[in-house]
Amino acid sequence: MLNITLAQYDLVYNAFSFTIAVMGAATVFAFLNRSQVAPAYRTAMTLTGIVTLIAGYHYFRIANSWEAAFIVEAGTIRLSGVGFNDAYRYVDWLLTVPLLLIELILVMRLSSAETVSKSVRLGLLAALMVALGYPGEIASDHGTRWLFFALSMIPFSIIVYELFFGLRKSIENQPAEARGLINGACWLTIGSWSFYPVVFVLPMLGIEGGTANVAVQVGYTIADIVAKAVLGVLIYMIAVRKSAADGAYVSGALPIPARA
Amino acid sequence: MLNITLAQYDLVYNAFSFTIAVMGAATVFAFLNRSQVAPAYRTAMTLTGIVTLIAGYHYFRIANSWEAAFIVEAGTIRLSGVGFNDAYRYVDWLLTVPLLLIELILVMRLSSAETVSKSVRLGLLAALMVALGYPGEIASDHGTRWLFFALSMIPFSIIVYELFFGLRKSIENQPAEARGLINGACWLTIGSWSFYPVVFVLPMLGIEGGTANVAVQVGYTIADIVAKAVLGVLIYMIAVRKSAADGAYVSGALPIPARA
Repeated sequence: MLNITLAQYDLVYNAFSFTIAVMGAATVFAFLNRSQVAPAYRTAMTLTGIVTLIAGYHYFRIANSWEAAFIVEAGTIRLSGVGFNDAYRYVDWLLTVPLLLIELILVMRLSSAETVSKSVRLGLLAALMVALGYPGEIASDHGTRWLFFALSMIPFSIIVYELFFGLRKSIENQPAEARGLINGACWLTIGSWSFYPVVFVLPMLGIEGGTANVAVQVGYTIADIVAKAVLGVLIYMIAVRKSAADGAYVSGALPIPARA
Repeated sequence: MLNITLAQYDLVYNAFSFTIAVMGAATVFAFLNRSQVAPAYRTAMTLTGIVTLIAGYHYFRIANSWEAAFIVEAGTIRLSGVGFNDAYRYVDWLLTVPLLLIELILVMRLSSAETVSKSVRLGLLAALMVALGYPGEIASDHGTRWLFFALSMIPFSIIVYELFFGLRKSIENQPAEARGLINGACWLTIGSWSFYPVVFVLPMLGIEGGTANVAVQVGYTIADIVAKAVLGVLIYMIAVRKSAADGAYVSGALPIPARA
Protein backbone atom coordinates (compact mmCIF):
# COMPACT_ATOMS: atom_id res chain seq x y z
CA MET A 1 0.00 0.00 0.00
CA LEU A 2 2.95 2.28 0.78
CA ASN A 3 4.65 4.35 -1.87
CA ILE A 4 2.14 4.12 -4.66
CA THR A 5 2.21 6.85 -7.26
CA LEU A 6 -0.74 9.09 -8.09
CA ALA A 7 -1.11 7.29 -11.43
CA GLN A 8 -1.29 3.93 -9.62
CA TYR A 9 -3.85 5.32 -7.17
CA ASP A 10 -5.97 6.52 -10.12
CA LEU A 11 -5.62 3.20 -11.94
CA VAL A 12 -6.91 1.23 -8.95
CA TYR A 13 -9.68 3.76 -8.27
CA ASN A 14 -10.85 3.64 -11.90
CA ALA A 15 -10.76 -0.16 -11.86
CA PHE A 16 -13.04 -0.11 -8.79
CA SER A 17 -15.44 2.39 -10.37
CA PHE A 18 -15.50 0.33 -13.58
CA THR A 19 -16.40 -2.74 -11.52
CA ILE A 20 -19.26 -0.94 -9.76
CA ALA A 21 -20.71 -0.11 -13.19
CA VAL A 22 -20.18 -3.66 -14.48
CA MET A 23 -21.76 -5.30 -11.44
CA GLY A 24 -24.72 -2.90 -11.53
CA ALA A 25 -25.26 -3.59 -15.23
CA ALA A 26 -24.97 -7.36 -14.71
CA THR A 27 -27.49 -7.20 -11.85
CA VAL A 28 -30.11 -5.33 -13.88
CA PHE A 29 -29.49 -7.67 -16.83
CA ALA A 30 -30.04 -10.76 -14.68
CA PHE A 31 -33.18 -9.45 -12.96
CA LEU A 32 -34.87 -8.14 -16.12
CA ASN A 33 -33.92 -11.03 -18.40
CA ARG A 34 -35.04 -13.52 -15.74
CA SER A 35 -38.47 -13.39 -17.40
CA GLN A 36 -36.89 -14.46 -20.71
CA VAL A 37 -36.10 -17.97 -19.42
CA ALA A 38 -38.37 -20.82 -18.40
CA PRO A 39 -39.53 -20.77 -14.73
CA ALA A 40 -37.25 -23.73 -13.90
CA TYR A 41 -34.17 -21.55 -14.51
CA ARG A 42 -35.36 -18.35 -12.84
CA THR A 43 -33.84 -19.12 -9.44
CA ALA A 44 -30.45 -19.46 -11.15
CA MET A 45 -31.01 -16.01 -12.72
CA THR A 46 -32.06 -14.56 -9.35
CA LEU A 47 -28.87 -15.88 -7.72
CA THR A 48 -26.75 -14.56 -10.61
CA GLY A 49 -28.16 -11.08 -10.06
CA ILE A 50 -27.80 -11.34 -6.27
CA VAL A 51 -24.12 -12.28 -6.65
CA THR A 52 -23.36 -9.22 -8.80
CA LEU A 53 -25.50 -7.00 -6.56
CA ILE A 54 -23.53 -8.07 -3.48
CA ALA A 55 -20.28 -7.57 -5.40
CA GLY A 56 -21.38 -4.11 -6.58
CA TYR A 57 -22.18 -3.11 -3.00
CA HIS A 58 -18.76 -4.28 -1.80
CA TYR A 59 -16.91 -2.55 -4.65
CA PHE A 60 -18.70 0.66 -3.70
CA ARG A 61 -17.38 0.23 -0.14
CA ILE A 62 -13.93 -0.81 -1.39
CA ALA A 63 -13.72 2.31 -3.61
CA ASN A 64 -14.68 4.54 -0.67
CA SER A 65 -12.15 2.81 1.59
CA TRP A 66 -9.45 3.25 -1.07
CA GLU A 67 -10.29 6.97 -1.33
CA ALA A 68 -10.17 7.35 2.47
CA ALA A 69 -6.79 5.61 2.76
CA PHE A 70 -4.96 8.34 0.82
CA ILE A 71 -4.75 12.10 0.73
CA VAL A 72 -4.33 13.56 -2.76
CA GLU A 73 -3.21 17.16 -2.76
CA ALA A 74 -1.68 19.39 -5.41
CA GLY A 75 -0.61 16.43 -7.52
CA THR A 76 0.98 14.52 -4.61
CA ILE A 77 -0.27 11.49 -2.71
CA ARG A 78 0.31 10.24 0.83
CA LEU A 79 -1.28 7.81 3.25
CA SER A 80 -4.04 9.30 5.35
CA GLY A 81 -3.49 6.92 8.26
CA VAL A 82 -6.92 5.32 7.79
CA GLY A 83 -6.29 1.72 6.77
CA PHE A 84 -7.66 0.28 3.54
CA ASN A 85 -10.26 -2.33 4.51
CA ASP A 86 -9.28 -5.65 2.93
CA ALA A 87 -12.05 -7.49 4.78
CA TYR A 88 -14.71 -6.29 2.31
CA ARG A 89 -13.35 -8.74 -0.27
CA TYR A 90 -13.53 -11.70 2.09
CA VAL A 91 -17.00 -10.82 3.33
CA ASP A 92 -18.04 -10.55 -0.30
CA TRP A 93 -16.53 -13.92 -1.24
CA LEU A 94 -18.01 -15.61 1.84
CA LEU A 95 -21.44 -14.76 0.42
CA THR A 96 -20.92 -14.83 -3.33
CA VAL A 97 -18.63 -17.83 -3.88
CA PRO A 98 -21.10 -20.42 -2.46
CA LEU A 99 -23.90 -18.68 -4.42
CA LEU A 100 -21.87 -18.88 -7.64
CA LEU A 101 -21.52 -22.63 -7.27
CA ILE A 102 -25.21 -22.99 -6.46
CA GLU A 103 -26.27 -20.98 -9.55
CA LEU A 104 -24.10 -23.29 -11.67
CA ILE A 105 -25.76 -26.36 -10.12
CA LEU A 106 -29.26 -24.87 -10.46
CA VAL A 107 -28.94 -24.07 -14.15
CA MET A 108 -28.06 -27.75 -14.78
CA ARG A 109 -31.47 -28.71 -13.38
CA LEU A 110 -30.40 -31.97 -11.73
CA SER A 111 -32.72 -34.08 -9.64
CA SER A 112 -34.04 -32.41 -6.51
CA ALA A 113 -31.96 -34.62 -4.20
CA GLU A 114 -28.77 -34.09 -6.21
CA THR A 115 -29.32 -30.31 -6.34
CA VAL A 116 -29.65 -30.09 -2.57
CA SER A 117 -26.73 -32.39 -1.74
CA LYS A 118 -24.36 -30.80 -4.25
CA SER A 119 -25.39 -27.24 -3.27
CA VAL A 120 -24.87 -27.90 0.43
CA ARG A 121 -21.56 -29.71 -0.05
CA LEU A 122 -20.02 -27.27 -2.55
CA GLY A 123 -21.48 -24.22 -0.79
CA LEU A 124 -19.99 -25.21 2.57
CA LEU A 125 -16.63 -26.08 1.00
CA ALA A 126 -16.55 -22.66 -0.72
CA ALA A 127 -17.37 -20.82 2.51
CA LEU A 128 -14.67 -22.83 4.32
CA MET A 129 -12.16 -21.99 1.59
CA VAL A 130 -12.79 -18.24 1.95
CA ALA A 131 -12.86 -18.34 5.77
CA LEU A 132 -9.50 -20.15 5.86
CA GLY A 133 -7.94 -17.63 3.49
CA TYR A 134 -8.71 -14.59 5.63
CA PRO A 135 -6.40 -15.25 8.64
CA GLY A 136 -3.61 -15.66 6.08
CA GLU A 137 -4.48 -12.43 4.28
CA ILE A 138 -4.25 -10.32 7.45
CA ALA A 139 -1.21 -12.16 8.88
CA SER A 140 1.97 -10.13 9.01
CA ASP A 141 4.39 -13.08 8.85
CA HIS A 142 4.87 -15.34 5.86
CA GLY A 143 4.68 -18.54 7.94
CA THR A 144 1.08 -17.90 9.00
CA ARG A 145 0.24 -16.81 5.45
CA TRP A 146 1.57 -20.06 3.96
CA LEU A 147 -0.20 -22.13 6.64
CA PHE A 148 -3.64 -20.71 5.88
CA PHE A 149 -2.92 -20.74 2.16
CA ALA A 150 -2.28 -24.49 2.41
CA LEU A 151 -5.40 -25.06 4.53
CA SER A 152 -7.55 -23.01 2.13
CA MET A 153 -6.22 -24.96 -0.86
CA ILE A 154 -7.77 -28.19 0.53
CA PRO A 155 -11.43 -27.16 -0.01
CA PHE A 156 -10.33 -25.32 -3.21
CA SER A 157 -8.90 -28.55 -4.64
CA ILE A 158 -12.01 -30.54 -3.73
CA ILE A 159 -14.26 -27.98 -5.46
CA VAL A 160 -12.14 -28.02 -8.63
CA TYR A 161 -12.20 -31.83 -8.54
CA GLU A 162 -16.01 -31.76 -8.18
CA LEU A 163 -16.42 -29.33 -11.10
CA PHE A 164 -14.16 -31.51 -13.26
CA PHE A 165 -15.25 -35.03 -12.34
CA GLY A 166 -18.28 -34.87 -10.04
CA LEU A 167 -20.32 -32.90 -12.58
CA ARG A 168 -18.98 -34.79 -15.62
CA LYS A 169 -21.89 -37.24 -15.77
CA SER A 170 -24.46 -34.48 -15.21
CA ILE A 171 -22.95 -32.41 -18.02
CA GLU A 172 -23.16 -35.37 -20.41
CA ASN A 173 -26.90 -35.59 -19.67
CA GLN A 174 -27.48 -31.96 -20.63
CA PRO A 175 -29.20 -31.12 -23.94
CA ALA A 176 -26.64 -30.97 -26.77
CA GLU A 177 -27.18 -27.25 -27.51
CA ALA A 178 -26.30 -26.26 -23.92
CA ARG A 179 -23.48 -28.72 -23.22
CA GLY A 180 -20.70 -26.60 -24.71
CA LEU A 181 -21.81 -23.51 -22.77
CA ILE A 182 -22.04 -25.45 -19.48
CA ASN A 183 -18.58 -26.85 -20.05
CA GLY A 184 -17.46 -23.27 -20.76
CA ALA A 185 -19.05 -22.05 -17.52
CA CYS A 186 -17.18 -24.74 -15.50
CA TRP A 187 -13.89 -23.87 -17.20
CA LEU A 188 -14.48 -20.14 -16.68
CA THR A 189 -15.09 -20.78 -12.99
CA ILE A 190 -11.97 -22.91 -12.58
CA GLY A 191 -9.89 -20.46 -14.65
CA SER A 192 -10.98 -17.30 -12.85
CA TRP A 193 -10.76 -18.96 -9.41
CA SER A 194 -7.19 -20.12 -10.08
CA PHE A 195 -6.26 -16.48 -10.23
CA TYR A 196 -7.07 -15.83 -6.55
CA PRO A 197 -4.42 -18.14 -4.98
CA VAL A 198 -1.84 -16.73 -7.43
CA VAL A 199 -2.61 -13.19 -6.28
CA PHE A 200 -2.57 -14.40 -2.67
CA VAL A 201 1.00 -15.77 -2.86
CA LEU A 202 2.52 -12.72 -4.60
CA PRO A 203 3.66 -11.07 -1.32
CA MET A 204 5.15 -14.39 -0.12
CA LEU A 205 7.30 -14.54 -3.24
CA GLY A 206 8.93 -11.26 -2.34
CA ILE A 207 6.76 -9.24 -4.73
CA GLU A 208 5.74 -6.50 -2.33
CA GLY A 209 5.43 -2.73 -2.04
CA GLY A 210 3.24 -0.29 -3.92
CA THR A 211 3.39 -1.89 -7.35
CA ALA A 212 2.60 -5.36 -6.02
CA ASN A 213 -0.32 -3.93 -4.09
CA VAL A 214 -1.69 -2.31 -7.22
CA ALA A 215 -1.28 -5.62 -9.07
CA VAL A 216 -3.19 -7.42 -6.29
CA GLN A 217 -6.10 -4.95 -6.36
CA VAL A 218 -6.42 -4.89 -10.14
CA GLY A 219 -5.92 -8.67 -10.30
CA TYR A 220 -8.69 -9.46 -7.81
CA THR A 221 -10.93 -6.98 -9.66
CA ILE A 222 -10.48 -8.65 -13.05
CA ALA A 223 -10.99 -12.10 -11.49
CA ASP A 224 -14.21 -10.90 -9.80
CA ILE A 225 -15.60 -9.47 -13.06
CA VAL A 226 -14.93 -12.72 -14.93
CA ALA A 227 -16.10 -15.04 -12.14
CA LYS A 228 -19.33 -13.10 -11.47
CA ALA A 229 -20.49 -10.86 -14.34
CA VAL A 230 -19.15 -12.82 -17.31
CA LEU A 231 -20.30 -16.08 -15.70
CA GLY A 232 -23.72 -14.46 -15.24
CA VAL A 233 -24.09 -13.83 -18.97
CA LEU A 234 -23.06 -17.45 -19.64
CA ILE A 235 -25.64 -18.70 -17.11
CA TYR A 236 -28.31 -16.64 -18.93
CA MET A 237 -27.32 -18.09 -22.31
CA ILE A 238 -27.40 -21.63 -20.87
CA ALA A 239 -30.85 -20.95 -19.39
CA VAL A 240 -32.16 -19.62 -22.72
CA ARG A 241 -30.90 -22.64 -24.67
CA LYS A 242 -32.18 -25.10 -22.07
CA SER A 243 -35.58 -23.38 -21.97
CA ALA A 244 -35.76 -23.83 -25.74
CA ALA A 245 -34.66 -27.47 -25.50
CA ASP A 246 -37.25 -28.12 -22.79
CA GLY A 247 -39.94 -26.88 -25.16
CA ALA A 248 -40.92 -23.97 -22.95
CA TYR A 249 -41.38 -21.84 -26.02
CA VAL A 250 -44.15 -23.97 -27.43
CA SER A 251 -46.65 -22.27 -25.13
CA GLY A 252 -45.82 -18.93 -26.71
CA ALA A 253 -45.10 -17.49 -23.28
CA LEU A 254 -41.48 -16.99 -24.19
CA PRO A 255 -39.86 -15.68 -27.37
CA ILE A 256 -38.73 -18.30 -29.83
CA PRO A 257 -35.04 -17.62 -30.27
CA ALA A 258 -34.00 -17.16 -33.86
CA ARG A 259 -32.10 -20.18 -35.10
CA ALA A 260 -29.43 -20.20 -37.78
CA MET B 1 -9.05 23.10 -17.32
CA LEU B 2 -7.05 26.15 -16.24
CA ASN B 3 -8.49 29.62 -16.31
CA ILE B 4 -12.15 28.85 -16.71
CA THR B 5 -14.59 31.50 -15.56
CA LEU B 6 -17.24 30.93 -12.94
CA ALA B 7 -19.91 31.12 -15.68
CA GLN B 8 -18.10 28.40 -17.65
CA TYR B 9 -17.80 26.24 -14.52
CA ASP B 10 -21.55 26.59 -13.96
CA LEU B 11 -22.34 25.85 -17.60
CA VAL B 12 -20.41 22.57 -17.52
CA TYR B 13 -21.80 21.61 -14.11
CA ASN B 14 -25.36 22.23 -15.26
CA ALA B 15 -24.75 20.25 -18.45
CA PHE B 16 -23.61 17.31 -16.31
CA SER B 17 -26.63 17.59 -14.02
CA PHE B 18 -28.95 17.80 -17.04
CA THR B 19 -27.37 14.61 -18.39
CA ILE B 20 -27.87 12.75 -15.09
CA ALA B 21 -31.59 13.62 -15.30
CA VAL B 22 -31.82 12.61 -18.99
CA MET B 23 -30.02 9.29 -18.47
CA GLY B 24 -32.15 8.47 -15.43
CA ALA B 25 -35.33 9.24 -17.33
CA ALA B 26 -34.19 7.19 -20.35
CA THR B 27 -33.38 4.25 -18.06
CA VAL B 28 -36.82 4.24 -16.42
CA PHE B 29 -38.47 4.64 -19.83
CA ALA B 30 -36.60 1.65 -21.25
CA PHE B 31 -37.24 -0.62 -18.26
CA LEU B 32 -40.95 0.20 -17.92
CA ASN B 33 -41.76 0.19 -21.62
CA ARG B 34 -39.88 -3.07 -22.08
CA SER B 35 -43.17 -4.87 -21.43
CA GLN B 36 -44.82 -2.94 -24.32
CA VAL B 37 -42.77 -4.76 -26.94
CA ALA B 38 -42.82 -8.42 -27.96
CA PRO B 39 -40.54 -10.72 -25.91
CA ALA B 40 -38.09 -11.07 -28.82
CA TYR B 41 -37.16 -7.38 -28.47
CA ARG B 42 -36.98 -7.19 -24.69
CA THR B 43 -33.26 -7.92 -24.44
CA ALA B 44 -32.63 -4.92 -26.74
CA MET B 45 -34.75 -2.78 -24.36
CA THR B 46 -32.87 -4.18 -21.35
CA LEU B 47 -29.53 -3.24 -22.92
CA THR B 48 -30.84 0.23 -23.88
CA GLY B 49 -31.72 0.89 -20.23
CA ILE B 50 -28.44 -0.59 -18.98
CA VAL B 51 -26.49 1.75 -21.30
CA THR B 52 -28.23 4.87 -19.98
CA LEU B 53 -27.99 3.55 -16.39
CA ILE B 54 -24.21 3.11 -16.72
CA ALA B 55 -23.96 6.57 -18.34
CA GLY B 56 -26.05 8.12 -15.56
CA TYR B 57 -23.75 6.55 -12.94
CA HIS B 58 -20.68 7.93 -14.69
CA TYR B 59 -22.17 11.43 -15.13
CA PHE B 60 -22.90 11.44 -11.42
CA ARG B 61 -19.21 10.62 -10.78
CA ILE B 62 -18.09 13.14 -13.42
CA ALA B 63 -20.19 15.92 -11.85
CA ASN B 64 -18.72 15.15 -8.42
CA SER B 65 -15.20 15.10 -9.84
CA TRP B 66 -15.82 18.45 -11.59
CA GLU B 67 -17.03 19.93 -8.30
CA ALA B 68 -13.97 18.61 -6.43
CA ALA B 69 -11.55 20.00 -9.02
CA PHE B 70 -12.44 23.63 -8.28
CA ILE B 71 -12.92 25.85 -5.27
CA VAL B 72 -15.66 28.44 -5.68
CA GLU B 73 -15.52 31.20 -3.09
CA ALA B 74 -16.96 34.69 -2.91
CA GLY B 75 -17.64 34.79 -6.63
CA THR B 76 -14.16 33.61 -7.61
CA ILE B 77 -12.98 30.26 -8.88
CA ARG B 78 -9.63 28.47 -8.64
CA LEU B 79 -8.28 24.95 -9.05
CA SER B 80 -8.46 22.84 -5.88
CA GLY B 81 -5.43 20.72 -6.79
CA VAL B 82 -7.53 17.57 -7.10
CA GLY B 83 -7.46 16.56 -10.75
CA PHE B 84 -10.66 16.22 -12.78
CA ASN B 85 -10.99 12.51 -13.57
CA ASP B 86 -11.19 12.15 -17.36
CA ALA B 87 -11.05 8.36 -17.10
CA TYR B 88 -14.75 8.08 -16.15
CA ARG B 89 -15.69 8.85 -19.77
CA TYR B 90 -13.42 6.16 -21.18
CA VAL B 91 -14.52 3.60 -18.60
CA ASP B 92 -18.11 4.47 -19.53
CA TRP B 93 -17.50 4.15 -23.26
CA LEU B 94 -15.60 0.89 -22.82
CA LEU B 95 -18.83 -0.59 -21.44
CA THR B 96 -21.56 1.33 -23.26
CA VAL B 97 -20.25 1.59 -26.82
CA PRO B 98 -20.12 -2.21 -27.39
CA LEU B 99 -23.56 -2.50 -25.73
CA LEU B 100 -25.00 0.22 -28.02
CA LEU B 101 -23.92 -1.75 -31.09
CA ILE B 102 -25.32 -4.97 -29.62
CA GLU B 103 -28.72 -3.36 -28.88
CA LEU B 104 -28.84 -2.19 -32.51
CA ILE B 105 -28.06 -5.72 -33.72
CA LEU B 106 -30.57 -7.30 -31.31
CA VAL B 107 -33.48 -5.10 -32.37
CA MET B 108 -32.93 -6.25 -35.97
CA ARG B 109 -33.55 -9.85 -34.85
CA LEU B 110 -31.12 -11.55 -37.22
CA SER B 111 -30.44 -15.28 -37.12
CA SER B 112 -28.89 -16.59 -33.91
CA ALA B 113 -25.49 -17.21 -35.56
CA GLU B 114 -25.41 -13.77 -37.21
CA THR B 115 -26.43 -12.06 -33.97
CA VAL B 116 -23.60 -13.71 -32.05
CA SER B 117 -20.93 -13.19 -34.73
CA LYS B 118 -21.85 -9.54 -35.40
CA SER B 119 -22.19 -8.75 -31.67
CA VAL B 120 -18.79 -10.25 -30.85
CA ARG B 121 -17.02 -8.62 -33.82
CA LEU B 122 -18.53 -5.13 -33.48
CA GLY B 123 -18.38 -5.27 -29.65
CA LEU B 124 -14.66 -6.09 -29.64
CA LEU B 125 -13.90 -3.46 -32.29
CA ALA B 126 -15.76 -0.83 -30.25
CA ALA B 127 -13.88 -1.76 -27.05
CA LEU B 128 -10.59 -1.63 -28.97
CA MET B 129 -11.49 1.80 -30.38
CA VAL B 130 -12.13 3.22 -26.89
CA ALA B 131 -9.06 1.53 -25.35
CA LEU B 132 -6.81 2.98 -28.08
CA GLY B 133 -8.22 6.46 -27.56
CA TYR B 134 -7.37 6.66 -23.84
CA PRO B 135 -3.54 6.75 -24.03
CA GLY B 136 -3.98 9.64 -26.48
CA GLU B 137 -6.43 11.47 -24.22
CA ILE B 138 -4.05 11.48 -21.24
CA ALA B 139 -0.88 12.14 -23.30
CA SER B 140 0.69 15.53 -22.78
CA ASP B 141 2.38 15.78 -26.19
CA HIS B 142 0.56 16.14 -29.50
CA GLY B 143 2.63 13.42 -31.22
CA THR B 144 1.34 10.69 -28.90
CA ARG B 145 -2.16 12.12 -29.16
CA TRP B 146 -2.13 11.96 -32.96
CA LEU B 147 -0.64 8.43 -32.90
CA PHE B 148 -3.42 6.99 -30.73
CA PHE B 149 -6.02 9.03 -32.60
CA ALA B 150 -4.89 7.37 -35.83
CA LEU B 151 -4.83 3.90 -34.24
CA SER B 152 -8.30 4.40 -32.74
CA MET B 153 -9.70 5.54 -36.11
CA ILE B 154 -8.94 2.10 -37.61
CA PRO B 155 -11.61 0.19 -35.60
CA PHE B 156 -13.85 3.29 -35.83
CA SER B 157 -13.73 3.17 -39.63
CA ILE B 158 -14.43 -0.56 -39.72
CA ILE B 159 -17.50 -0.10 -37.47
CA VAL B 160 -18.86 2.73 -39.64
CA TYR B 161 -18.26 0.58 -42.73
CA GLU B 162 -20.13 -2.32 -41.07
CA LEU B 163 -23.09 -0.10 -40.13
CA PHE B 164 -23.24 1.24 -43.69
CA PHE B 165 -22.58 -1.85 -45.81
CA GLY B 166 -22.42 -4.91 -43.52
CA LEU B 167 -25.95 -4.33 -42.24
CA ARG B 168 -27.36 -3.12 -45.58
CA LYS B 169 -28.75 -6.51 -46.54
CA SER B 170 -30.17 -7.11 -43.06
CA ILE B 171 -31.91 -3.72 -43.13
CA GLU B 172 -33.49 -4.53 -46.50
CA ASN B 173 -34.97 -7.67 -44.94
CA GLN B 174 -36.64 -5.70 -42.15
CA PRO B 175 -40.41 -5.12 -42.25
CA ALA B 176 -41.24 -2.01 -44.29
CA GLU B 177 -42.72 -0.07 -41.36
CA ALA B 178 -39.48 -0.36 -39.34
CA ARG B 179 -36.93 0.05 -42.12
CA GLY B 180 -36.86 3.85 -42.07
CA LEU B 181 -36.40 3.93 -38.30
CA ILE B 182 -33.59 1.36 -38.37
CA ASN B 183 -31.86 3.35 -41.08
CA GLY B 184 -32.33 6.39 -38.86
CA ALA B 185 -30.82 4.59 -35.87
CA CYS B 186 -27.72 3.65 -37.91
CA TRP B 187 -27.36 7.23 -39.17
CA LEU B 188 -27.87 8.64 -35.66
CA THR B 189 -25.14 6.31 -34.39
CA ILE B 190 -22.69 7.26 -37.13
CA GLY B 191 -23.56 10.96 -36.79
CA SER B 192 -23.21 11.17 -33.02
CA TRP B 193 -20.07 9.02 -33.00
CA SER B 194 -18.39 11.27 -35.58
CA PHE B 195 -18.55 14.02 -33.01
CA TYR B 196 -16.15 12.26 -30.60
CA PRO B 197 -13.03 12.31 -32.84
CA VAL B 198 -13.76 15.96 -33.67
CA VAL B 199 -13.81 16.83 -29.96
CA PHE B 200 -10.67 14.70 -29.47
CA VAL B 201 -8.60 16.68 -32.01
CA LEU B 202 -9.60 20.16 -30.76
CA PRO B 203 -6.56 20.51 -28.46
CA MET B 204 -4.25 19.32 -31.27
CA LEU B 205 -5.52 22.12 -33.51
CA GLY B 206 -4.31 24.72 -31.06
CA ILE B 207 -7.74 25.21 -29.50
CA GLU B 208 -6.67 24.92 -25.87
CA GLY B 209 -7.16 26.51 -22.49
CA GLY B 210 -10.27 26.97 -20.41
CA THR B 211 -12.72 27.71 -23.23
CA ALA B 212 -11.62 24.67 -25.25
CA ASN B 213 -11.96 22.50 -22.17
CA VAL B 214 -15.50 23.71 -21.65
CA ALA B 215 -16.26 23.01 -25.32
CA VAL B 216 -14.88 19.47 -24.95
CA GLN B 217 -16.96 18.72 -21.84
CA VAL B 218 -20.19 20.12 -23.27
CA GLY B 219 -19.49 18.51 -26.65
CA TYR B 220 -18.97 15.01 -25.23
CA THR B 221 -22.10 15.50 -23.12
CA ILE B 222 -24.33 16.35 -26.10
CA ALA B 223 -22.87 13.45 -28.11
CA ASP B 224 -23.53 11.05 -25.20
CA ILE B 225 -27.16 12.17 -24.88
CA VAL B 226 -27.80 11.68 -28.61
CA ALA B 227 -25.88 8.39 -28.91
CA LYS B 228 -27.48 6.82 -25.82
CA ALA B 229 -30.80 8.39 -24.75
CA VAL B 230 -32.13 9.52 -28.15
CA LEU B 231 -30.99 6.23 -29.71
CA GLY B 232 -32.81 4.41 -26.90
CA VAL B 233 -36.13 6.04 -27.84
CA LEU B 234 -35.54 5.08 -31.49
CA ILE B 235 -34.79 1.47 -30.47
CA TYR B 236 -38.09 1.42 -28.56
CA MET B 237 -40.02 2.73 -31.58
CA ILE B 238 -38.37 0.14 -33.82
CA ALA B 239 -39.25 -2.61 -31.34
CA VAL B 240 -42.90 -1.46 -31.20
CA ARG B 241 -43.26 -1.42 -34.99
CA LYS B 242 -41.52 -4.76 -35.40
CA SER B 243 -43.68 -6.31 -32.66
CA ALA B 244 -46.74 -5.16 -34.62
CA ALA B 245 -45.30 -6.49 -37.87
CA ASP B 246 -44.54 -9.85 -36.19
CA GLY B 247 -48.21 -10.12 -35.29
CA ALA B 248 -47.61 -10.04 -31.56
CA TYR B 249 -50.61 -7.80 -31.18
CA VAL B 250 -53.02 -10.24 -32.71
CA SER B 251 -53.31 -12.04 -29.37
CA GLY B 252 -54.45 -8.82 -27.70
CA ALA B 253 -51.65 -9.13 -25.16
CA LEU B 254 -50.15 -5.87 -26.33
CA PRO B 255 -51.74 -2.54 -27.27
CA ILE B 256 -52.28 -1.98 -30.96
CA PRO B 257 -50.08 0.98 -31.91
CA ALA B 258 -51.74 3.83 -33.79
CA ARG B 259 -50.71 3.87 -37.42
CA ALA B 260 -50.17 6.97 -39.51
